[in-house]
Amino acid sequence: MRDFSNDHDWLSINTATVRRQGGAEVPLARIIDQCARHGIQAISPWRDQVAAAGLAQVCSQLRAHGIGLSGYCRGGFFTAADEAGRRAALDDNRRAIDEALALDAPCVVLVVGSLPGALEGKALHKDIGGARAQVRDGIAETLAYAREAGMPLAIEPLHPMQAAERACINTLAQALDLCETLDPLAQGGRAMLGVALDVYHVWWDPELERQIARAGRDRLFAYHVCDWRLPTRDLLSDRAMMGDGVIDLPRIRGWVEAAGYAGYSEVEIFSEADWWQRSGEDILQTCITRHRTVV
Amino acid sequence: MRDFSNDHDWLSINTATVRRQGGAEVPLARIIDQCARHGIQAISPWRDQVAAAGLAQVCSQLRAHGIGLSGYCRGGFFTAADEAGRRAALDDNRRAIDEALALDAPCVVLVVGSLPGALEGKALHKDIGGARAQVRDGIAETLAYAREAGMPLAIEPLHPMQAAERACINTLAQALDLCETLDPLAQGGRAMLGVALDVYHVWWDPELERQIARAGRDRLFAYHVCDWRLPTRDLLSDRAMMGDGVIDLPRIRGWVEAAGYAGYSEVEIFSEADWWQRSGEDILQTCITRHRTVV
Repeated sequence: MRDFSNDHDWLSINTATVRRQGGAEVPLARIIDQCARHGIQAISPWRDQVAAAGLAQVCSQLRAHGIGLSGYCRGGFFTAADEAGRRAALDDNRRAIDEALALDAPCVVLVVGSLPGALEGKALHKDIGGARAQVRDGIAETLAYAREAGMPLAIEPLHPMQAAERACINTLAQALDLCETLDPLAQGGRAMLGVALDVYHVWWDPELERQIARAGRDRLFAYHVCDWRLPTRDLLSDRAMMGDGVIDLPRIRGWVEAAGYAGYSEVEIFSEADWWQRSGEDILQTCITRHRTVV
Repeated sequence: MRDFSNDHDWLSINTATVRRQGGAEVPLARIIDQCARHGIQAISPWRDQVAAAGLAQVCSQLRAHGIGLSGYCRGGFFTAADEAGRRAALDDNRRAIDEALALDAPCVVLVVGSLPGALEGKALHKDIGGARAQVRDGIAETLAYAREAGMPLAIEPLHPMQAAERACINTLAQALDLCETLDPLAQGGRAMLGVALDVYHVWWDPELERQIARAGRDRLFAYHVCDWRLPTRDLLSDRAMMGDGVIDLPRIRGWVEAAGYAGYSEVEIFSEADWWQRSGEDILQTCITRHRTVV
């Protein structure tokens, strides 16, 4: 396993981690400057932040600071109640790929969606099996465009507690089944469909070690860290800083690196009650310290 | 699939569903009387409620009303930080089996436990793999006693969002692996280790249909229903009434009955903000109506 204790060269900051500071929304330009000042070499920005800042502006700011991307958040949400919705989702995923190309991202992360309407509080149906079929078809169509563009897609399996409204792909095994079906790997070929593995979503899985080995270097496109808080007070925005929860982070990173992953360790923390109330300096400095000591 | 629309003969009430009425704790004796008045033929009581009411008293009250049990809640919590804790847990599980025998329960439901200390808010270690090994050993020891007593044990896989503090068995596949390891089934023999399947914990699982078929009549000891609320505001006590959430209940019951299950459909709802604030009459009448229409 790589030694992270002496520097933070392999630390990436998912910009959601610092998108609110002191309780207030912070523009992406300021976040990028803060990361640069802390010697952070990679980020994973969100599309709404990029849109607000302007794509060209973000590209030139990143270039000026020599900051790269560990991923682009996010495509997905393929399910829809009707054909118009389905087509709109596919269009939007193509735009995400175009943006990722401009940003020189290594992959577009996919949060695939689930029951239509559920994110807005009212599911239009209860057929999660049907949603899964729709997701499979949506990824297949998007993958054709991604292949032409040369932009890999990373499926992010989401925690089962977010299965109704955010993603109906909920285990690493399920994501890998889909990868192997839609993007079978030719001898010596490069996978264009892989996974973004976030410890928050998968740490509980009794199959985790085995499935990480199965994914291998070919399919492990991104690795996200944070921690599981006790008690967890909110199903979406109560993640803990690495080291403050119950996830055995070095063990999981050991499995990931044994499988051949050698990329960034990306910090993604949604924390309404705690970290988003703190200063950017506090958040980033703590990310760096924890990256070097407990990840 | 059985037709539930004409009566509620196969409805069981897990007493947690009505343990608070109008916001206040209700004694088990009153709950049993309420169930009897509503023509409910089975309940699944909790050990603390039975202890408060007195075991002999509960037995005679149930007998007087002709009410049976669909399960006994609960054994488990096998993990401990030290040998004394481990032994105390095993002792407690033997007492649960003794009580279940007195109550003529069909099985003791096991919520197996996870990281020691986590339920109290501070995990003593992060080794969920170690916790799983300890759970396996605890079930094995308890099963020896259960066999002598002739009392089946039903492992309840809990939702992954409760993996840190309540149960490190989180999928039906994982529970069945353990059943087959610890209690291999001889030709024509009777399983003494099986599962209690609660839709709340497993509805999201892409393996669900296949694993229910694998469980079969032999291993399906209990079937629990409620619903998944959108949004879910609390990880423990925000379950919805059947029909008010996103779980496709008839589909899952179809799978369960196709596998050979022909027992009770047990309603287990923890609902701090909603149902526990209502009257017992309202809760029970709604359970009956929904049992007949949406389960």
